[in-house]
Amino acid sequence: MPFVHVELFEGRTLEQKAAIAKEITESITKHAGAPASAINVIFTDLPEGTLFQAGEMRKKN
Amino acid sequence: MPFVHVELFEGRTLEQKAAIAKEITESITKHAGAPASAINVIFTDLPEGTLFQAGEMRKKN
Amino acid sequence: MPFVHVELFEGRTLEQKAAIAKEITESITKHAGAPASAINVIFTDLPEGTLFQAGEMRKKN
Amino acid sequence: MPFVHVELFEGRTLEQKAAIAKEITESITKHAGAPASAINVIFTDLPEGTLFQAGEMRKKN
Amino acid sequence: MPFVHVELFEGRTLEQKAAIAKEITESITKHAGAPASAINVIFTDLPEGTLFQAGEMRKKN
Amino acid sequence: MPFVHVELFEGRTLEQKAAIAKEITESITKHAGAPASAINVIFTDLPEGTLFQAGEMRKKN
Repeated sequence: MPFVHVELFEGRTLEQKAAIAKEITESITKHAGAPASAINVIFTDLPEGTLFQAGEMRKKN
Repeated sequence: MPFVHVELFEGRTLEQKAAIAKEITESITKHAGAPASAINVIFTDLPEGTLFQAGEMRKKN
Repeated sequence: MPFVHVELFEGRTLEQKAAIAKEITESITKHAGAPASAINVIFTDLPEGTLFQAGEMRKKN
Repeated sequence: MPFVHVELFEGRTLEQKAAIAKEITESITKHAGAPASAINVIFTDLPEGTLFQAGEMRKKN
Repeated sequence: MPFVHVELFEGRTLEQKAAIAKEITESITKHAGAPASAINVIFTDLPEGTLFQAGEMRKKN
Repeated sequence: MPFVHVELFEGRTLEQKAAIAKEITESITKHAGAPASAINVIFTDLPEGTLFQAGEMRKKN
């Protein structure tokens, strides 16, 4: 705790995810006072065809 | 917002998901007054072997 | 299964949620062939101050 | 209901998941008084590269 | 990791939740080989009026 | 999309959440190339008594 789930389209590299996870962890540590060791960030890669906005399929961005 | 997550067994086609997403979006627009552009529907395909009911594995339906 | 989670701002009545749940259930039954008895729809009411879009707090709609 | 989601690293066998699902179901039946038929346990397999703790990628355990 | 989310109707006591969390933790430790310290169990209490099965509101059990 | 869910103990102020949401949005915009308008951050406040680690209740931090 805190637990952070990030849902995004597949295609981001490990380096991109690592950079985001590092900054999310720093942000929560700084503003919420939680120790970094307690912060878990989990990424879910969504393939195209799984997200619909306004009833229409969204293409990968 | 609203955000809708639908977990179902894998095997449904894009056409089936699109039809469901369209109707969910229309229903929420009609009854909750949310604008369609704000409604996101996300499907998670579950493979067989991931769902257990009453402690027993459920086969794909 | 299928399981449907709907996150929306608090303030919708039980009648509104019931109408949405009924239509989501009918839609999934029709298009995905799942029996109605297996379809669970769960609503999560979000209070104002929990959703941020583009880094800005979204007011209840 | 109850619905139980278990996120864990990929690599566990169907037998391991079945054993865990059976014991979770028994535990909730015993302590919460819910009928076993209403208890659904869903496993999400996470590949390596999706979990970051303290800002660092966690290897599969 | 593993992370376990349990959604159930409100009304269970802290003692009931603690007993369930303890047994889930033991089960995952035994069958999946994960260290107990890495296992987090999170309960979400659902009020009546949030769960609909087969399109009908489910009363608290 | 991306959608970010943050689960943390209740007690953080709106200002703390806003600061975290702003930085998460900036981080994902910078590293994943997603437009800020598509990034939604949702906070779930967990009361004490809902999180158990290693089978033991965690107090609010």
